[in-house]
Amino acid sequence: MKLRRSERMVVISNYLINNPYSLTSLNTFAEKYQAAKSSISEDIAIIKRAFENSNIGHIETVTGASGGVIFTPSISQEEARGIVQELCQRLSESDRILPGGYIYLSDLLSTPSILQSVGRIIASAFAGQKVDAVMTVATKGVPLANAVANVLNVPFVIVRRDLKITEGSTVSVNYVSGSSDRIEKMFLSKRSLKPKSRVLIVDDFLKGGGTISGMISLLREFESDLVGVAVFAENSQKEREHLFDYKSLLTVSEIDVKNNLVKVELGNIFQ
Amino acid sequence: MKLRRSERMVVISNYLINNPYSLTSLNTFAEKYQAAKSSISEDIAIIKRAFENSNIGHIETVTGASGGVIFTPSISQEEARGIVQELCQRLSESDRILPGGYIYLSDLLSTPSILQSVGRIIASAFAGQKVDAVMTVATKGVPLANAVANVLNVPFVIVRRDLKITEGSTVSVNYVSGSSDRIEKMFLSKRSLKPKSRVLIVDDFLKGGGTISGMISLLREFESDLVGVAVFAENSQKEREHLFDYKSLLTVSEIDVKNNLVKVELGNIFQ
Repeated sequence: MKLRRSERMVVISNYLINNPYSLTSLNTFAEKYQAAKSSISEDIAIIKRAFENSNIGHIETVTGASGGVIFTPSISQEEARGIVQELCQRLSESDRILPGGYIYLSDLLSTPSILQSVGRIIASAFAGQKVDAVMTVATKGVPLANAVANVLNVPFVIVRRDLKITEGSTVSVNYVSGSSDRIEKMFLSKRSLKPKSRVLIVDDFLKGGGTISGMISLLREFESDLVGVAVFAENSQKEREHLFDYKSLLTVSEIDVKNNLVKVELGNIFQ
Repeated sequence: MKLRRSERMVVISNYLINNPYSLTSLNTFAEKYQAAKSSISEDIAIIKRAFENSNIGHIETVTGASGGVIFTPSISQEEARGIVQELCQRLSESDRILPGGYIYLSDLLSTPSILQSVGRIIASAFAGQKVDAVMTVATKGVPLANAVANVLNVPFVIVRRDLKITEGSTVSVNYVSGSSDRIEKMFLSKRSLKPKSRVLIVDDFLKGGGTISGMISLLREFESDLVGVAVFAENSQKEREHLFDYKSLLTVSEIDVKNNLVKVELGNIFQ
């Protein structure tokens, strides 16, 4: 397909946005759009400047025979703060308090525009670190893991609390469930994670930390390494044994069930 | 922020790609990038041509005071077929057969690039129909619903097979579970779906149809309407009471456990 320069820039931008963190050679673009490699090179320079000026992301050029360009999405501190401040307000809505002092989050974690922003913020917090997979636990964490994996362009891995026949053989570990204070089991399909993977763990809400500790022990069973832990929100009231470092977008500092009040602050990801 | 034309086109493209199915006024772009409305209008014309020539999507211009542009992602029949044919091959891999004649799908449904393509194909199949939400059942359907909802830029709604305290009050219906042939219950949080919504149901694998029939009866409880049903794969061997129309990407026509053979064909979405 032969395109004018301006059109070519639009379609190359689209390609890079949809293929983050992956190397594409300039020849691929040159062949696809029937243009000289030098023209493609100029297009990329303009796209790079536009992406960087607007905080869309960075474009890295890798030289040499197996070279090409890699697009890494980013987000400015300012934009990230703005988004999370808005989430603070949403979370502070009094009708979110559920019996037992839980907070209703499902509407936020099922809105694509919010998930995309949150995915970009979490991915940026681990920029420069190699991540092979994003891990979470079913069901609440799945959209979040999916969002972060989309930005990093890596698969996500779902740990389950029950055994499903459709998962094939699994590895299981015990963990202390915070909500029931009991020892429970979590399962991961053997073929869902390659050994020696570098894994980023994400979850929706951090309370006691039992679930995440469980996932970390699963990583050991798969001879894999922990890159880091990120949560959408944490409960600062809970005394947590600090078994792992983590980054949180939001900190729920107070849930006053009697007066129907939730106090939410920016999480430690901004520190 | 003031940008050159070429840079402006790149950032407007990025904006449209990340905000599908939503109306943005030309004034928004004009203010954001400090350019005349007429210049923005010319930029959009070039982007529109590039998007349409490359089957990225359509840009519709709405005139009038509350007017603007709407980007609708699309996919060509050719590209869609190519993607699904590749999925046919992946699904036919003999090591996917699990005891009981089940097929392992989790790796495909946790790879962002596959999910994005599948989301675009399913969304395109319902183009022109108003969709307010995408519904699925936990856990397998979630990434698929998320992918379709991303393209349509609407929330997704997760039906559960168990009661979670973090969901608040729920509505439940009975359904016939295909795997156990028993009557079971499914639950949907009351606040997760607004009454009178138009809903697209998606799921990973269609066997007996009990789960989807359950979701359809849940829709009635929420006074909501079914736009359509789409599944990643269906099992053509099963006799299904045709209680609903559906579109499938893949049809598994034979699972030969003895000889470790899976036969997969293009689904009815291509008919």
